[in-house]
Amino acid sequence: MKDDAELTASHLPAGFQWGAVRAGIKASGNLDLAVAIAHGTGGATGAAVGAAMFTANRVVAAPVTVGRRHLAATGGRVAAVLVNAGNANCANGEPGIEGCVATCVAAAESFGCIFDEVFPSSTGIIGVPFPAQKVVAAIPELKASLGSTGQHAESFVRAIMTTDTRVKTAHAVVSVDPAQDAGKSVEVRIWGAAKGAGMIHPQLGAPPAPPHATMLVYLFTDVAACAEHLQAALATAVEPSFNSISIDGDTSTNDTVLLLASGASGLPLRGDLVPKFEAALGEVCRSLARQIVADGEGVSHSVTLDIRGAATAVDAKLVAKAIAHSPLCKTAWSSADPNWGRLLAAAGYSGATFDPARVCIWIAGQPVFEYGVRAPSFDEAAAHQAMMQPEYTIAIDLGAGSGECLFLTCDLTAEYVRINADYST
Amino acid sequence: MKDDAELTASHLPAGFQWGAVRAGIKASGNLDLAVAIAHGTGGATGAAVGAAMFTANRVVAAPVTVGRRHLAATGGRVAAVLVNAGNANCANGEPGIEGCVATCVAAAESFGCIFDEVFPSSTGIIGVPFPAQKVVAAIPELKASLGSTGQHAESFVRAIMTTDTRVKTAHAVVSVDPAQDAGKSVEVRIWGAAKGAGMIHPQLGAPPAPPHATMLVYLFTDVAACAEHLQAALATAVEPSFNSISIDGDTSTNDTVLLLASGASGLPLRGDLVPKFEAALGEVCRSLARQIVADGEGVSHSVTLDIRGAATAVDAKLVAKAIAHSPLCKTAWSSADPNWGRLLAAAGYSGATFDPARVCIWIAGQPVFEYGVRAPSFDEAAAHQAMMQPEYTIAIDLGAGSGECLFLTCDLTAEYVRINADYST
Repeated sequence: MKDDAELTASHLPAGFQWGAVRAGIKASGNLDLAVAIAHGTGGATGAAVGAAMFTANRVVAAPVTVGRRHLAATGGRVAAVLVNAGNANCANGEPGIEGCVATCVAAAESFGCIFDEVFPSSTGIIGVPFPAQKVVAAIPELKASLGSTGQHAESFVRAIMTTDTRVKTAHAVVSVDPAQDAGKSVEVRIWGAAKGAGMIHPQLGAPPAPPHATMLVYLFTDVAACAEHLQAALATAVEPSFNSISIDGDTSTNDTVLLLASGASGLPLRGDLVPKFEAALGEVCRSLARQIVADGEGVSHSVTLDIRGAATAVDAKLVAKAIAHSPLCKTAWSSADPNWGRLLAAAGYSGATFDPARVCIWIAGQPVFEYGVRAPSFDEAAAHQAMMQPEYTIAIDLGAGSGECLFLTCDLTAEYVRINADYST
Repeated sequence: MKDDAELTASHLPAGFQWGAVRAGIKASGNLDLAVAIAHGTGGATGAAVGAAMFTANRVVAAPVTVGRRHLAATGGRVAAVLVNAGNANCANGEPGIEGCVATCVAAAESFGCIFDEVFPSSTGIIGVPFPAQKVVAAIPELKASLGSTGQHAESFVRAIMTTDTRVKTAHAVVSVDPAQDAGKSVEVRIWGAAKGAGMIHPQLGAPPAPPHATMLVYLFTDVAACAEHLQAALATAVEPSFNSISIDGDTSTNDTVLLLASGASGLPLRGDLVPKFEAALGEVCRSLARQIVADGEGVSHSVTLDIRGAATAVDAKLVAKAIAHSPLCKTAWSSADPNWGRLLAAAGYSGATFDPARVCIWIAGQPVFEYGVRAPSFDEAAAHQAMMQPEYTIAIDLGAGSGECLFLTCDLTAEYVRINADYST
């Protein structure tokens, strides 16, 4: 598994095409409408098999409502993924739903599939009427942009970016013993693309769970699998990756992770391939999650919270989230300030059960707090120096049990404030 | 009830003296050690009757541990309140407790009371060894500084400030029918002083509830009351005031609200006086809470969240807190950006139950969202203009029931980041 420094077609799974155009939705005039088309062997109409997880926010964007409805109607068949950036199509009431449906109808006609095999996504500002006509008008040009090269895949990723400063992709290849499946492919490929830099605290649930932040992730593979097996693999991969990151604690109305399997490798997801595929999918998701945090709005430091010794795994996550959402912890990280008192205070109000006298804390490997007092070997200058790294780990042993979690977050900078104070006006 | 533009002795309840000195704890060299002495008629030793509420943080500072122990030991008798700023005496283990106790012993000796009639408080940085010797050494000078004028009371408030930019006090006078208590005072006075500008999201509980942020509030009155009645009055006053504000969502390890009754008015807290006293105490607490938010670190706008129509009062507070702690909502307020989509998204992930199609939102009186869509009369320029005021209300009707709450919070500015990124290094 590698983060994709450079996209080459040899990373891409067979059975898909990608494309993107400028539909005039982003004020910048950049690419803002993307499509991915499946032409694999996994479905009756040439569609891919899809599994998805959506935000847990009670307020959901129109494409989340429509996408969930479509997956339920088709039993998980997806022929086309249609994504726009620049408008979230959220809080637009019935006109928002109608606009989303209109774009799916137009896409189905153009790409030769049935209406509910189109999976829609939107990201951008909430509450601005959705310009469905701009999307519909751009679909012929979007069709003409399709192709299966690395450039085509990259155009897809570029079009879905909002405040992202860089493309976020990852891929993995799972090798299969050729003797086992003679005459078929010898590998399964997974390629993933993500966008998201603010309003990032995904809390994804399988449909029909309630939805939530704008992170969009599309995972493509050429394995052959049924929707149930794909959904199980996706749920396992999402928990330690996208559901264990937070930039600002704001869970969006549009978060979506979609996994599509074209089946074009001819290799079925069974036997030995299951654990290998799940491991590879997990790596791709973790890589994308890391890239999302590293490219967070205004982020200068990515911090992994390694919480151990909690009474339960739930307590470990409570502590991680309290720290990840504490403005005082996050501002201290922005200046490489080893102010461990703020970490301890946030753990204290997290709701987790522990005795401060049994707690130990290390920042970037430097001991700062041991069993209720400042670590005897605490070296403020050394800790400050270690926190100058762009990525480091804060480890906290609560001394209360064996619950643990890894959670990835980032600092809070004046640049984050600037970006988000200027968003819509 | 009035915010105190200018402290005069006529506002101050009888039976107390205040003083403050420079003990060398604050790096600035400003006043950093304060004392309030009771010499009323409420206790056997001349001590006042006290009621207190402390932070709900699981990690508590040494003075919180010691203060709770003292109130329990004396049944609520307080002769002296000893407060330092510049060091929170938190996460200092047993040496922190010992240092706190040493200062109480020295104060008891100097002020002529017993050891556990001294109520200690600290505020400042967490995890730096507590300079108990500096406090002990300054107590003789502290005693010499005592007096009962407005200047003495103001020196008490100034000494407990940390990042506060202004003194926060409020007072109230409750008139009593002179015929009813012939020969006694005709009024009960309440005077309150507060500090707190960051790490402000108090979650106060009566002892022995767990503790939490550094807000310190001292309320003085000359009513005559038992500890149980004072505690009941304090709990009622705290919920809609200090427990309904948040600057940054970080609940401190040191939060303390102490109410002392000297009894010097000779008027007992019974009959008609009970509701009048409770109303006046509530007003003083709400005034101090408002002043704390308005002086929050980097704050440029105070925002009252008026949440109505929730399924329950608990749901109303969930929505208020999600919005009050959302970096995206708070940064939008800093630039007077009427980005109501962020309000709706935060309500959506709050955990409260509602249907977005029944929600209406007004910002500073401007309708922005009505029943699932942008308000037809939404006027972005007018809303932006209204949000330029330093204080305004955001009203949200969830259309789900009759639960409601008022919650006071503020914007998040680059200045907040600057202040907290520079705190200890």
